Amino acid sequence: MTSYWCQYAELGSGPVPGVRVVEDAGRIVSVDRTAAAPGDVRLTGVVLPGFANAHSHAFHRALRGRTSDRGGSFWTWRQQMYAVAGRLDPDSYLALARATYAEMALAGVTCVGEFHYLHHPPGGGRYDDPNAMSEALVQAAADAGVRLTLLDACYLAGGLEAAGHLPLDGVQARFSDGDADAWAKRVASFPERDGVRVGAAVHSVRAVPADQLGTVVDAARGRPLHVHLSEQPAENAACLAFYGATPARLLESRGVLGAATTAVHAVHLTDEDVAILGATGTAVCACPSTEADLADGIGPFPRLGAAGSPLCLGSDQHVQTDLLGEARLLEAHARLVTGERGHFRPAELVVALTAAGHRALGWPDAGRIAPGQRADLVAVRTDSPRTAGCAPDQLTAAATAADVHTVITDGRVVVTEGRHVLGDVGRLLSTAIEPLWGDT
Amino acid sequence: MTSYWCQYAELGSGPVPGVRVVEDAGRIVSVDRTAAAPGDVRLTGVVLPGFANAHSHAFHRALRGRTSDRGGSFWTWRQQMYAVAGRLDPDSYLALARATYAEMALAGVTCVGEFHYLHHPPGGGRYDDPNAMSEALVQAAADAGVRLTLLDACYLAGGLEAAGHLPLDGVQARFSDGDADAWAKRVASFPERDGVRVGAAVHSVRAVPADQLGTVVDAARGRPLHVHLSEQPAENAACLAFYGATPARLLESRGVLGAATTAVHAVHLTDEDVAILGATGTAVCACPSTEADLADGIGPFPRLGAAGSPLCLGSDQHVQTDLLGEARLLEAHARLVTGERGHFRPAELVVALTAAGHRALGWPDAGRIAPGQRADLVAVRTDSPRTAGCAPDQLTAAATAADVHTVITDGRVVVTEGRHVLGDVGRLLSTAIEPLWGDT
Repeated sequence: MTSYWCQYAELGSGPVPGVRVVEDAGRIVSVDRTAAAPGDVRLTGVVLPGFANAHSHAFHRALRGRTSDRGGSFWTWRQQMYAVAGRLDPDSYLALARATYAEMALAGVTCVGEFHYLHHPPGGGRYDDPNAMSEALVQAAADAGVRLTLLDACYLAGGLEAAGHLPLDGVQARFSDGDADAWAKRVASFPERDGVRVGAAVHSVRAVPADQLGTVVDAARGRPLHVHLSEQPAENAACLAFYGATPARLLESRGVLGAATTAVHAVHLTDEDVAILGATGTAVCACPSTEADLADGIGPFPRLGAAGSPLCLGSDQHVQTDLLGEARLLEAHARLVTGERGHFRPAELVVALTAAGHRALGWPDAGRIAPGQRADLVAVRTDSPRTAGCAPDQLTAAATAADVHTVITDGRVVVTEGRHVLGDVGRLLSTAIEPLWGDT
Repeated sequence: MTSYWCQYAELGSGPVPGVRVVEDAGRIVSVDRTAAAPGDVRLTGVVLPGFANAHSHAFHRALRGRTSDRGGSFWTWRQQMYAVAGRLDPDSYLALARATYAEMALAGVTCVGEFHYLHHPPGGGRYDDPNAMSEALVQAAADAGVRLTLLDACYLAGGLEAAGHLPLDGVQARFSDGDADAWAKRVASFPERDGVRVGAAVHSVRAVPADQLGTVVDAARGRPLHVHLSEQPAENAACLAFYGATPARLLESRGVLGAATTAVHAVHLTDEDVAILGATGTAVCACPSTEADLADGIGPFPRLGAAGSPLCLGSDQHVQTDLLGEARLLEAHARLVTGERGHFRPAELVVALTAAGHRALGWPDAGRIAPGQRADLVAVRTDSPRTAGCAPDQLTAAATAADVHTVITDGRVVVTEGRHVLGDVGRLLSTAIEPLWGDT
């Protein structure tokens, strides 16, 4: 049992000064407004619930600062990404994901949703353990002190054009189980365990033909189900041409949408798409730094929220690993295209980072500082050059990952004074990434 | 004389490994590719020229994290900004600007362009020294170890509507010298000195009637001249209605534009405006974090660059003080609205941060690592959790102010291991800002 005294704690309606949070066996057992007492561990600044990073491709971290020397588009970037995807094996994937998740922990992430499609060996065979790559992710998250929802993605086709789906090409071969039944059997064989949920994903309407979607939906019952949705206009155009429906409408017609489902990106939507997502209670995961970096565009997130879609956030390809930064960009991008400020209040951004993200990843018992919840606490400095002078209830307007000083996940202290228990995270990242690029 | 050995140094076409830079009396005297020698001060990571923050309103730093709890627009934000503007005197302005400039130094800024209009006491009288507020800024910059271009702004009218200019209202009274002649006399009486250039500014077509512009242009000869341009659509609409011309065209017709002039924001432009700015060689200062925070919109910066306008960057209202971040947002915002990546190569972003910014502020002898230039060096970590794994020539895709570890301005070491010579900058900021909001 540990007693934390928080200078401020976010209890659901803005930071409250002077709060004691008592943790026992990984759960919060009490929350009280009170003065600090001897024996309390003091957490300065504002203490928030743990952040859920609701959309991650861990291996994309290797692409940060490696694709910015030229022009191109999402599609040319994807070729560079595939080159890295083609080089990873369970050992190098473990090293890269461990470092990537450790960087997330430094940013206040206590739970990550890994949208995982790098299943099989290059060329498309099977590892001795067909879930060897999943095991690497589980180990990586455990080492880094981050809970994991493994969103095992069904990926069957190499793309969609007006005439139909394309065959798998090159590196894509290792993404595929052959058909949705085989995918479902592999996923069913992978056990959940302490700190690990197994969810499902439809990679996209590009990668999963409509006649396979029902199998995925059946296999996903009782699990979180995620899907990339309308990230690029070309996906919409091909889907409309082939199916006569937008991706959102197609997915809705096959039962993919609903309160257990999270649509990722949701950038290029019709008004009807927004209404469908909202009416089905489908969550939406915005990934603003990725949507800028990959030139995706700005999604209608305020309208989606108003329509009924809970909003959460992901760092996706990790061009930055700063969930507070993602929250700020969510609001900033909306301002850029509307001429108006204040689409999301700070407390709404905190919900997106915490409770809504955890819910999208299948952890309803995390994301709030309240008795019975998992003991996930993130302490953010209010006295740094970035945050000094801010009102505590507006910290999301200024704080960055560099202001996170203490992170506690399931009662375990993972980050103290900005340092991760694994040590030098920069070195972990360099060691994992440089060999992938042939750096000496 | 000090000899610095740089792990990598940016010499104009990307980072070069192993460079010795020798400084004497504030100038660079030699630059050589060579191994490190005993006696060299080692600078790890990538060493860039000093950054110029080409557009600053120092006192706006007090608004960070204070206006994000509600909706509204640029215009409602301005009312909140005026409330702070009404409270400052030379002493509180000095404390706030010193802390604000120290935060800039931590971010790698070696020179700031302060767009200064807070000239006179509340109500519009005169301080005993009518340049007392300017003196506060000069002292603040010297204390913080940042060179200053004081862009003394002419501000005469309270706004522009279709029927003409409005009288000054409330707090605006302290911005005005009465007419452009009086403004010019006060500016002429303010001496330049070591590390300080005195430039001029037209606040905007809203605040300076066209018949006063010629006086400002005459007074600005031989000095940098800056002007807020088309930040909000309402300015354009009023200017068109009253003058029958866009702000850019009006300014061009009165001789305001040219190679010594910098247009700030330049967000809402016609194709003809872009051509005018480019053809006159007018520099453009983008302030992307402000343009997002204030819901201004996304300017046509790639087209302006192609038309002939040198681009530089400013942190403006300091919602963040991270010039590397501004560079990244310049590229990111262009991607959001075009669907294409790579509008600005990393080396172009570095030029905007360094040589182009210094040129816009009247310091042609700064912004490059070359013999004869001012000895301004900014060392950026390549081994942090944010930057590890990046290619050195793509560091602008990932590095933030928190990665700046050493800053040298005119040969003076201002920041070492991320610490400013003035000490705890967070505390300086809190001490300066909290009294302005009546915090206890």
